[in-house]
Amino acid sequence: MALFEALLELADDHLVLGHRLSEWCGHAPMLEEDLALPNMALDLIGTSRTLYTYAGEVEGAGRDEDALAYLRDEMEYRNCLLVERPNGDFAQTMLRQLYFAAFMEPYWKAALESPDETVRGIAGKAVKEMAYHIRHAGEWVIRLGDGTEESARRMQEAVEELHRYTDELFHSSAAARGVDALPDRAAIRPEWDRVIGEIFAEARLEIPQVPFPQQGGREMQHGEALGHMLAEMQVTHRAHPGAVW
Amino acid sequence: MALFEALLELADDHLVLGHRLSEWCGHAPMLEEDLALPNMALDLIGTSRTLYTYAGEVEGAGRDEDALAYLRDEMEYRNCLLVERPNGDFAQTMLRQLYFAAFMEPYWKAALESPDETVRGIAGKAVKEMAYHIRHAGEWVIRLGDGTEESARRMQEAVEELHRYTDELFHSSAAARGVDALPDRAAIRPEWDRVIGEIFAEARLEIPQVPFPQQGGREMQHGEALGHMLAEMQVTHRAHPGAVW
Repeated sequence: MALFEALLELADDHLVLGHRLSEWCGHAPMLEEDLALPNMALDLIGTSRTLYTYAGEVEGAGRDEDALAYLRDEMEYRNCLLVERPNGDFAQTMLRQLYFAAFMEPYWKAALESPDETVRGIAGKAVKEMAYHIRHAGEWVIRLGDGTEESARRMQEAVEELHRYTDELFHSSAAARGVDALPDRAAIRPEWDRVIGEIFAEARLEIPQVPFPQQGGREMQHGEALGHMLAEMQVTHRAHPGAVW
Repeated sequence: MALFEALLELADDHLVLGHRLSEWCGHAPMLEEDLALPNMALDLIGTSRTLYTYAGEVEGAGRDEDALAYLRDEMEYRNCLLVERPNGDFAQTMLRQLYFAAFMEPYWKAALESPDETVRGIAGKAVKEMAYHIRHAGEWVIRLGDGTEESARRMQEAVEELHRYTDELFHSSAAARGVDALPDRAAIRPEWDRVIGEIFAEARLEIPQVPFPQQGGREMQHGEALGHMLAEMQVTHRAHPGAVW
């Protein structure tokens, strides 16, 4: 079941981050972002849907996308901790988005060479979306980091808060490791370092030393923030499974 | 300023309904709808953005899309009452969407013949989106109306609740009437009646008698539901105008 678990890691990352972003729905500070943030959320949730469907097929136990998204508990979620971090302010939201997209874009690019046709199909669509997310979130990180005194302070605080969660992007759980159909997460590191380094230089941001990287999500050990989010997300479906209310 | 006010009627309809739909973000009963509902919301908010920008140009007082969307009060909003009605259950949300789209699709089709080039541009994009909304919401109305006993009961209740608000779709305020650049709202009625009649027949729904049609939104008299919604929507922008927090 290594492939199943590796697909869940990916799907959970996308669903959780998509739902975090969608919490901005209707609360964005400007109409432009009231379109851009939900659009990015939809990219992520759309990808998670395809990944869950494929994971369900690989598992072969009759679970569909909705069963995998709505009927698992917090302790069965395999997302990395970065994506479940609360939105915080706009600086944190955009930085979290940049960290994630700067990982996923080269990851999907590598996945275009997968021996698995379904994976190649997912990668072909997702790689373009992630390039857009890097561009959009990266522009904000630069604009805020190299902006006013307050915006620069907030962006540096976001870096201090979130950078410790980025290490886990490059990890798979033992169960999910070594799957031929998917790229090796650790191999994405140089490209991620390059992209983040360039954007941080333009944004006049410092990459902090992280003595204690935070991880555990891949092993299904999550912060309490995830439980609250899943409860909100799952309540409608669980109240009346299979019905629309 | 007839054109300015007529554009605001349109823009407010789209923004308010878009925000109502986006309240489903992250709470949909299935992944498919967790994509479809926000997608429809984005269509509407995207159209409102273009309309506000054009309205601001027509007004010539230096108000941009954000000023028009976030810095007007409830008593300055010109949307019809239908679009501000609370989401209720899934049946009400889908029926409200069908009522609105079945009006806007023929409206934009007529607007393709506008002497105003900007209006023609907006209509060309929006007419396709509204055709999709009719299809998507119409399928749900049929599926629920002609479904289980409970779903049929809920759908008929949605009709009883919302039908009285549909008359106002065909009205403009006195100030906004008779604008050459935009179609006559009243002239859309036969096509709306035809589409709704066909879908209701398939859904086994009865079109109710409405002794007292509800209106007032075009004259900026709104139910209290709008005030709550605008407060939520505007709070981030108003807290720090022009900033992202």
